[in-house]
Amino acid sequence: MYRLKGLGELRRKAPQMTVSWFNTFSFSRRAHSLPFATNLAVEDISGAQPAEVQNLLQGKWMGSSTWNTLVDPLNGEPFIKVAEVDGRGVQPFVESLRQCPKHGLHNPFKSPERYLMLGDVSAKAAHLLSLPEVSDFFTKLIQRLAPKSYQQAFGEVYVTQKFLENFSGDQVRFLARSFAVPGNHLGQQSHGFRWPYGPVAIITPFNFPLEIPVLQLMGALYMGNKPVLKVDSKVSLVMDQMLRLLHASGLPTEDVDFINCDGKTMNKLLVEVEYVSWVCDQDAYACSGQKCSAQSILFMHENWGRSPLLGKMKDLAARRKLDDLTIGPVLTVTTEAMLEHKNKLLQIPGSKLLFGGDALQNHSIPAIYGAIKPTAIFVPLEEILKNDNFELVTKEIFGPFQIITEYKDNQLPMVLNALERMHAHLTAAVVSNDMLFLQEVIGQSVNGTTYAGLRARTTGAPQNHWFGPAGDPRGAGIGTPEAIKLVWSCHREIIYDIGPLPKQWEIPVST
Amino acid sequence: MYRLKGLGELRRKAPQMTVSWFNTFSFSRRAHSLPFATNLAVEDISGAQPAEVQNLLQGKWMGSSTWNTLVDPLNGEPFIKVAEVDGRGVQPFVESLRQCPKHGLHNPFKSPERYLMLGDVSAKAAHLLSLPEVSDFFTKLIQRLAPKSYQQAFGEVYVTQKFLENFSGDQVRFLARSFAVPGNHLGQQSHGFRWPYGPVAIITPFNFPLEIPVLQLMGALYMGNKPVLKVDSKVSLVMDQMLRLLHASGLPTEDVDFINCDGKTMNKLLVEVEYVSWVCDQDAYACSGQKCSAQSILFMHENWGRSPLLGKMKDLAARRKLDDLTIGPVLTVTTEAMLEHKNKLLQIPGSKLLFGGDALQNHSIPAIYGAIKPTAIFVPLEEILKNDNFELVTKEIFGPFQIITEYKDNQLPMVLNALERMHAHLTAAVVSNDMLFLQEVIGQSVNGTTYAGLRARTTGAPQNHWFGPAGDPRGAGIGTPEAIKLVWSCHREIIYDIGPLPKQWEIPVST
Amino acid sequence: MYRLKGLGELRRKAPQMTVSWFNTFSFSRRAHSLPFATNLAVEDISGAQPAEVQNLLQGKWMGSSTWNTLVDPLNGEPFIKVAEVDGRGVQPFVESLRQCPKHGLHNPFKSPERYLMLGDVSAKAAHLLSLPEVSDFFTKLIQRLAPKSYQQAFGEVYVTQKFLENFSGDQVRFLARSFAVPGNHLGQQSHGFRWPYGPVAIITPFNFPLEIPVLQLMGALYMGNKPVLKVDSKVSLVMDQMLRLLHASGLPTEDVDFINCDGKTMNKLLVEVEYVSWVCDQDAYACSGQKCSAQSILFMHENWGRSPLLGKMKDLAARRKLDDLTIGPVLTVTTEAMLEHKNKLLQIPGSKLLFGGDALQNHSIPAIYGAIKPTAIFVPLEEILKNDNFELVTKEIFGPFQIITEYKDNQLPMVLNALERMHAHLTAAVVSNDMLFLQEVIGQSVNGTTYAGLRARTTGAPQNHWFGPAGDPRGAGIGTPEAIKLVWSCHREIIYDIGPLPKQWEIPVST
Amino acid sequence: MYRLKGLGELRRKAPQMTVSWFNTFSFSRRAHSLPFATNLAVEDISGAQPAEVQNLLQGKWMGSSTWNTLVDPLNGEPFIKVAEVDGRGVQPFVESLRQCPKHGLHNPFKSPERYLMLGDVSAKAAHLLSLPEVSDFFTKLIQRLAPKSYQQAFGEVYVTQKFLENFSGDQVRFLARSFAVPGNHLGQQSHGFRWPYGPVAIITPFNFPLEIPVLQLMGALYMGNKPVLKVDSKVSLVMDQMLRLLHASGLPTEDVDFINCDGKTMNKLLVEVEYVSWVCDQDAYACSGQKCSAQSILFMHENWGRSPLLGKMKDLAARRKLDDLTIGPVLTVTTEAMLEHKNKLLQIPGSKLLFGGDALQNHSIPAIYGAIKPTAIFVPLEEILKNDNFELVTKEIFGPFQIITEYKDNQLPMVLNALERMHAHLTAAVVSNDMLFLQEVIGQSVNGTTYAGLRARTTGAPQNHWFGPAGDPRGAGIGTPEAIKLVWSCHREIIYDIGPLPKQWEIPVST
Repeated sequence: MYRLKGLGELRRKAPQMTVSWFNTFSFSRRAHSLPFATNLAVEDISGAQPAEVQNLLQGKWMGSSTWNTLVDPLNGEPFIKVAEVDGRGVQPFVESLRQCPKHGLHNPFKSPERYLMLGDVSAKAAHLLSLPEVSDFFTKLIQRLAPKSYQQAFGEVYVTQKFLENFSGDQVRFLARSFAVPGNHLGQQSHGFRWPYGPVAIITPFNFPLEIPVLQLMGALYMGNKPVLKVDSKVSLVMDQMLRLLHASGLPTEDVDFINCDGKTMNKLLVEVEYVSWVCDQDAYACSGQKCSAQSILFMHENWGRSPLLGKMKDLAARRKLDDLTIGPVLTVTTEAMLEHKNKLLQIPGSKLLFGGDALQNHSIPAIYGAIKPTAIFVPLEEILKNDNFELVTKEIFGPFQIITEYKDNQLPMVLNALERMHAHLTAAVVSNDMLFLQEVIGQSVNGTTYAGLRARTTGAPQNHWFGPAGDPRGAGIGTPEAIKLVWSCHREIIYDIGPLPKQWEIPVST
Repeated sequence: MYRLKGLGELRRKAPQMTVSWFNTFSFSRRAHSLPFATNLAVEDISGAQPAEVQNLLQGKWMGSSTWNTLVDPLNGEPFIKVAEVDGRGVQPFVESLRQCPKHGLHNPFKSPERYLMLGDVSAKAAHLLSLPEVSDFFTKLIQRLAPKSYQQAFGEVYVTQKFLENFSGDQVRFLARSFAVPGNHLGQQSHGFRWPYGPVAIITPFNFPLEIPVLQLMGALYMGNKPVLKVDSKVSLVMDQMLRLLHASGLPTEDVDFINCDGKTMNKLLVEVEYVSWVCDQDAYACSGQKCSAQSILFMHENWGRSPLLGKMKDLAARRKLDDLTIGPVLTVTTEAMLEHKNKLLQIPGSKLLFGGDALQNHSIPAIYGAIKPTAIFVPLEEILKNDNFELVTKEIFGPFQIITEYKDNQLPMVLNALERMHAHLTAAVVSNDMLFLQEVIGQSVNGTTYAGLRARTTGAPQNHWFGPAGDPRGAGIGTPEAIKLVWSCHREIIYDIGPLPKQWEIPVST
Repeated sequence: MYRLKGLGELRRKAPQMTVSWFNTFSFSRRAHSLPFATNLAVEDISGAQPAEVQNLLQGKWMGSSTWNTLVDPLNGEPFIKVAEVDGRGVQPFVESLRQCPKHGLHNPFKSPERYLMLGDVSAKAAHLLSLPEVSDFFTKLIQRLAPKSYQQAFGEVYVTQKFLENFSGDQVRFLARSFAVPGNHLGQQSHGFRWPYGPVAIITPFNFPLEIPVLQLMGALYMGNKPVLKVDSKVSLVMDQMLRLLHASGLPTEDVDFINCDGKTMNKLLVEVEYVSWVCDQDAYACSGQKCSAQSILFMHENWGRSPLLGKMKDLAARRKLDDLTIGPVLTVTTEAMLEHKNKLLQIPGSKLLFGGDALQNHSIPAIYGAIKPTAIFVPLEEILKNDNFELVTKEIFGPFQIITEYKDNQLPMVLNALERMHAHLTAAVVSNDMLFLQEVIGQSVNGTTYAGLRARTTGAPQNHWFGPAGDPRGAGIGTPEAIKLVWSCHREIIYDIGPLPKQWEIPVST
Repeated sequence: MYRLKGLGELRRKAPQMTVSWFNTFSFSRRAHSLPFATNLAVEDISGAQPAEVQNLLQGKWMGSSTWNTLVDPLNGEPFIKVAEVDGRGVQPFVESLRQCPKHGLHNPFKSPERYLMLGDVSAKAAHLLSLPEVSDFFTKLIQRLAPKSYQQAFGEVYVTQKFLENFSGDQVRFLARSFAVPGNHLGQQSHGFRWPYGPVAIITPFNFPLEIPVLQLMGALYMGNKPVLKVDSKVSLVMDQMLRLLHASGLPTEDVDFINCDGKTMNKLLVEVEYVSWVCDQDAYACSGQKCSAQSILFMHENWGRSPLLGKMKDLAARRKLDDLTIGPVLTVTTEAMLEHKNKLLQIPGSKLLFGGDALQNHSIPAIYGAIKPTAIFVPLEEILKNDNFELVTKEIFGPFQIITEYKDNQLPMVLNALERMHAHLTAAVVSNDMLFLQEVIGQSVNGTTYAGLRARTTGAPQNHWFGPAGDPRGAGIGTPEAIKLVWSCHREIIYDIGPLPKQWEIPVST
């Protein structure tokens, strides 16, 4: 997982390691120019002076009532104590992740300054790793935990430094580069963005205790996710130390949680995290076809409420007729089921039927299919948000049936909260030309294909728009070059290395 | 899922539909300039003259002993008979998919002329769909099965035509555009390719019976996959007809299988397909960290066998010592387990120990870890491929342990077959500067990070190479800008549509 | 310039050519299913029946008083008459080009439906060229004018057809794909667009009379330019016919002008065209550094005029002092020159000094440098646009000196006209959050780095923005990855073609 | 050209500047941890202690016999002496540039380790600029020369630092990312690379004395060019110092030349540089159509010479006949001119006619056109390279006429030298499957469309290959999406900055 670098001469073995840098509770401080310096040397880690690995939660390092002891792979001595989180202790980590919304800590429409901050953190951390004493510390620490030669361990440190250099300055925001294509008429443009997943979990193995966790952790952070990191306990001391270096380089301590636990506990955490972060996509993915345009709900600003909008909607609905199939049979929901759903909704305080609500008459549609008039039901926003009503109001009815509600300026956060709580996040339209409003709503939502602007509508996806939910990369993106490439093929990397060999090449020492 | 087009006047209802185009077993032919023309008009489909939907397997249309009858959603009459495949009948479809290798029907190193052929098929099919009589036929057929207005149904046909135009000419191969970045030294370059998955399945819903299946089907084909297509039976007659149009446009009849079955049968098919196509990736993904560089096996051309290569390998292995950790403890496999594995391998006829094979001596490594000398065991290629031996020889040992075998020129297909049968496909190196040999091996394999050329090696992944398996898009790609973007973020599409409205815009008729 | 295609058997020679398709004034019509069909066969073109090549100007085909006669390269007979435009006749072509604004016929903010129209034209023209009789006609016509074998001539037609297929459907608009990167703070994003040059000229040689002109002509059209096309007279009959085919495929006849003339006349046209289309970029390029942020002029909507804006600007200007260098020496313009410029401006009717206008006092700045207070002069918009004043008002003063003017809603076209007439088009800011206003101004201007939105400013180009004029690709784009690549490197194409040869390959016939 | 940063408090004026960092001949050294430290403080630069600006040529800093003295813009005192190069002194700079080949100091096939080296230089220089004492030094130096406020001057330093961070690590090589597209048949792939221009010149203005030169200089270096830099003398002291910082960061001193001279001298240099670097492109561009496939010369390895190749070429040429136009009239060169050219070539010692060389017989081609048999003339490689013969042998004959020569393994440098000396560099084919040979030839040449591999040929450019010379970005790239975008449109940057303003925003101090 790294390339050998010509490194002068080999160090001989672990007992010669001599410097330790990063402050933990168990390492006492010593005077040093770097603020995170400690004075427990790597070679002093032993049965007599075991090192400790802590957990990091919402910006706070902390121990545990349960400590897991590791034995030295070279001599069997217990030499590291890991603060273990058990099944009961996992809840605060779940809560911490739940506080991160699905649209992440940042995205192209939210807190873009975080892209820059992470570019700064990368530049500073890369510089620290380039200092000989820091590089030597991590090299020896890796050797101590996952025994390998000095050059092999140094390779990890070097690759990690170069990776951090790669994403210095503006390069983090360049990762969020989007693209746009002219639309069908003046005023229309389609944009493809890279969107975070929100809360995510990273589980990494023992064999590359620095490189794999840092590269994946920073990648997750760069794109706007909030990660919880679990490293194989045998080597998690390395990341305990590295997280402190990242904090010293400016990474906010709340950005990453760090947990030590067994597989069962981690699985418990994952299940909960998954619930929070993935359910929407899985949901949408699992039956994508059946809920193409999904949630039929209209959030209407009160200004629209005062306009003739609702009246006109009613008139237009009334023009539809079975004769020319502008209204027709519903293939997956019966008439009875839809009328029952209507009745339940009308029991919510303040709700009312705006139009429709009746079965079609004088037709031969068989009873296994549905046949009702275009129907709209008003439900007050406060009622929608109540736990008892939310599932009912947002239930998928794949037919001519919609919910309408209304909000005032200061109720926008309630609308955004309702969006966040829904399970399916496919098509949406934000019908406004107010750039600040659009920015706020887009930046705090995760719907897939999203139409924005006064002419926005949810049923307009021709072949030049990516049509599909945000989330799962193989979800259901359809039709565009981007969609075809991402859905129907995978990346394969081929590295050619054909020579010629340098003129005086000789077999190097073993590593 | 489409945009309305101003379409002159509205047609009134189903009974006025009058033309039918594409030949099925149940439709009789009529004289017409197009070879696939038939003379059963859409309006004649009825209880008296039910239409039939067939299955397509390995290039042959076929009926079934079991027919599923659909009722007309407008009047309840049985009007379509679908040839259903049941659980027992699914096996030939599984076999058909299994014949497609994991590296697909084509990829950038295999049968590139297929990209062009699919560009031609798209251009021709787009032109056919642009003919008024063909467009009208499909529009009415959609209306007949999934009742919606003429304009709504026409929208699907129009979008499908435009999509096919988009991938005319060279545009299919442009989807396979790769990129390359200079390496660390002369002769090294890393390339990122888009690779197919091989056999895939597409399941589509009833609501867009033409657009969704065609866009996903063609996308899958373009990238080199072999799809089996299952459309919701209620509307599968549309794709039965469209597949015939695609064949008439030049699509080889073996490229797509088409199946009508219930969910349970499809699930059975999927499970088998999954086994064939996905197990490697899931496997690699599930414990990615534990098998970073996975399969330790060396396929050596006999010319190398005659060279001093093996002797030199033995000498180099002998230089390694615990003292400087150039050999060290194995953290996940015990000494005992590795020696037992060695003994089993040595029972294979023709196999022999090349070097190593003993436990390390004079050390304090605890027994829960492993400690053996670098070990290589030769196994004849013919033996590796035997069903009884294959699992054993390719068992993952995450330690200093490798299998070596040898092949002659004419045995390259056996080597490729062994690669295809393995379950994990992570790093590989193809050590040759012969461009034709590289092309053949790369084009017929699916390993993730693959090094090619005389200086190729499997352990050299710095931060500028994508490191991870091919396959699952969220697999474990690590470190590069491409990897960060594909692994840690998803696509989100925002379409701005801000106006202004055209000057004389009026409310159009309902659709 | 093309690849051989296996074409069955060779045609023998020109006299066997038998069909001619596209209508010119000199070809009489015959009854045929295609509207542009004629009945003069290619083989009939001869001294007795010479063909004629016409000019196309603003949608009208026309002859000339001067005809240039070409001799048949196979026998020396005069066989084609070309309507030549001479030096006097060139002016209407110049005028036609001048009517196309610098921002082109379309761009991502103007008439995006033209991208689709051109995708349609391409699909239709590709289909026509795929018809055997049309393909054969053009193949023989090319042979007749630029003698080469049937296969070689057919190669041109085939490549042209495939090119047109490539840009069918949405692929023209995909060429206009832009990208965007998050900015420094919420609300800021930088976008990179592909912008047309406006009026352009294409001059093509004799050796590929169809392929080179069509590929370059369509490329120019796709991006939004208005081309005048001149083909080597020896072969210009081919494009005379091909333009008629493009018109029949839906290309508006005004989109391309077609001229036959000698080099001297073309040069005259070019000089004038260059003046219209290139002067801004050349100007900016020639002394880029000296006019980094160039034109200091503020167009203020009357609503701003009524606000306290001007008063606040005056107060802020008054805070500046030499002491902390918030005002300082002007290195390239003397105090005297600036005061003289002020005086000239104040002679324009309606103009007035808003603030500043005096030399700095009590300083030791040497007389070779300039030293004045921050200065703003109001000039009425109507006066700015007068020919006598325009040069004066838009004169570059690289110092603390600006022009301010005001416009009403209905005067926006006057503002856009002023922008179009300026010679340098570097930085600009459009200070509004009104999306429709931004769309109108951006779509009808050609400034390079353009800031848009309420926080827009012209002096804010950090390293993550492309900073430079639009226009010349090597202009002065600075600092971004895009700029470095486009300014400091060129495209080089390497095509690998390594084999293997098809198994039964044999030497084909000569072509 | 930069953004204001919140900078704590304002420094008051120039006399308070106190530190100077970078060694020049005129600044004496002082003890300091950084090797390039000096002890002349910025505030000490004055009439009494003038600073000196030197020239840098081929790695050596040097003064001049002529010194140009600048006056302090704040008080008129002479305070800086610039070593001026005059017309006679310019020749060594021309020679220095000429030593850089047209294919640059590096490209994707030559010295790729230089991309990494430049990434390292950028990381180190960025870190140095981030140190408060270094940043303060450059800020004050800028203020001293181009009087502006501390914040404005600091802005330049900050942007420059961030730019250098952006191209740290692997990001320089990522700029050289290429792309590839599958070809028409197995073994064919087309690749698009970014290629340097070789020797280039950068001329920068006074207003941003650090930012503009560093961004353009590094951009030019990153892509593989060798720049000579000329900064407006009024401020060139800033880049004198900055170049020393770059050297201290690892930039090889020979990579950039730095010259101080007047416009006339620079123009002289430019004319010569242009001659070296641009003539090929301009040449190709000027009459692109007339020399599509240009130079007809075959360099044949002696192994091919011993094969039946030449005999087979002769046989194939003999099959061509006027009858089917497989040989035909030459439209731009007469028979007489071609025969005369043949005769001149045959006077070169060792040259001989291989086949052809006669006029066609029994035809009616008019005398204004050419008519000869396919002709090949052998000329020894040593003779081709002689100054007296080179122009003659490489003269463009746009007809069926080619030169053939032969080389041995050790003569490849002579072949590459001949390629470098030619003026037109359009199509070429390198007919070999030896990857190391291909790498060497491609990496040391600048031909545009280049075919590589055993099936390579120069006449095969369909619509999916970029066809055109390398060099001028608007040259004649034809037909591909890349070509259309780069040739027919320009980059335009729009930066949206819409707000909202931060909640407690106040008007900042003037800058």
